[in-house]
Amino acid sequence: MARRTSTATRRGPGGRGAGLTRERIVEQAIALMDRDGTEALSMRGLARELGVEPPALYWHFAGRDDLCRAVVDSVADRLLVSTKGRGTPRRRLEHHFRAIRDHWRAHPSALELSRRYPPSAAGAVSQEGLRLVEAMGIGEADALDVYRSLSWTVTGFVFMEQSLAHSVHHQRVGDTRWVLAIDDAPVDTPPSEFDTDALFTTTLGLDLDGVEQRVGQSV
Amino acid sequence: MARRTSTATRRGPGGRGAGLTRERIVEQAIALMDRDGTEALSMRGLARELGVEPPALYWHFAGRDDLCRAVVDSVADRLLVSTKGRGTPRRRLEHHFRAIRDHWRAHPSALELSRRYPPSAAGAVSQEGLRLVEAMGIGEADALDVYRSLSWTVTGFVFMEQSLAHSVHHQRVGDTRWVLAIDDAPVDTPPSEFDTDALFTTTLGLDLDGVEQRVGQSV
Repeated sequence: MARRTSTATRRGPGGRGAGLTRERIVEQAIALMDRDGTEALSMRGLARELGVEPPALYWHFAGRDDLCRAVVDSVADRLLVSTKGRGTPRRRLEHHFRAIRDHWRAHPSALELSRRYPPSAAGAVSQEGLRLVEAMGIGEADALDVYRSLSWTVTGFVFMEQSLAHSVHHQRVGDTRWVLAIDDAPVDTPPSEFDTDALFTTTLGLDLDGVEQRVGQSV
Repeated sequence: MARRTSTATRRGPGGRGAGLTRERIVEQAIALMDRDGTEALSMRGLARELGVEPPALYWHFAGRDDLCRAVVDSVADRLLVSTKGRGTPRRRLEHHFRAIRDHWRAHPSALELSRRYPPSAAGAVSQEGLRLVEAMGIGEADALDVYRSLSWTVTGFVFMEQSLAHSVHHQRVGDTRWVLAIDDAPVDTPPSEFDTDALFTTTLGLDLDGVEQRVGQSV
């Protein structure tokens, strides 16, 4: 894939910004956003974190937009490594989407950013997923539509999951366990507890059952 | 359902805030956010829009949090009306989720707010959906898990759909048609065009096929 060439190897500025690389800036941006939220990311604030003057950052990035793209691409690039799997196409597709969920869960701020800056490097991951959908028996004409549908479901799921942490009505009672407690619910409503791991298994299971069903129908 | 009692009937302040109701404030808040985005909503800015002084708003709402809850509840309340349908449980469930998608699409700012303030009034809608899942043949023990999974998929889908409008890589070419064009994609990659209406049909279809499959297995 023809990727944007890194400017990290260009001769950098001297002084306090010396030794600053594109990669180091991106890492610090991710750390800053994971700590303080995506809206906390500014070129000025990031420069402060890195102990440099803002112009040192502009040597590497045209501005916040350019930096945000690089953050999403960098996070998406790491996903490539972990989507390999073995077994039937269905099992490998399940593994593929579990890896995608785990990946975005680990990088909540990059997930938020990806709404505005969808990862361009996701192409390779999508190609792999698309091949697995075809291997399950979905014809070439429908495979992209089916893969995109599964992909939106999984990414949408992680959005929903990340929202729980900010919800005023949900209380965390375990790593993936939540209780929905609404003030003005009827008195006889028991608090509703659920586990997002179990919910993800149901969601992916229904989807993949649906894909298998579709293969059965077209035969 | 024991709902929070409206304070709109309480004796309001005199002067310029007179005649201001809770409902009117909520309407203006929705209009303001749909125009300028959720982060544009402040008590001060909203008072300016309404031509009143900020204290007039505090007569009706304890603060921004209280107002945001009321906005989400108000938008969610309107959904109740439109989820009725006829036909098989599957058709009615399809209608149910299409109504939910249409509803949130029409109120993007309330959808964003609902991440932090999930609608408490959604209970009645969920109950109806839950009964439809059971009517499809899913046992009581699994129905809530299945309904929640479908509900997350649909709401997550609308989040994904709303994100397209802000994406730097997507171009709108019709009401629900988009082209994904990535700068640094390989030269031989054709631009990818898709229709979110068609994608939603695929997504809901896969899910409901999966639900039917599950019924088949447990018989």
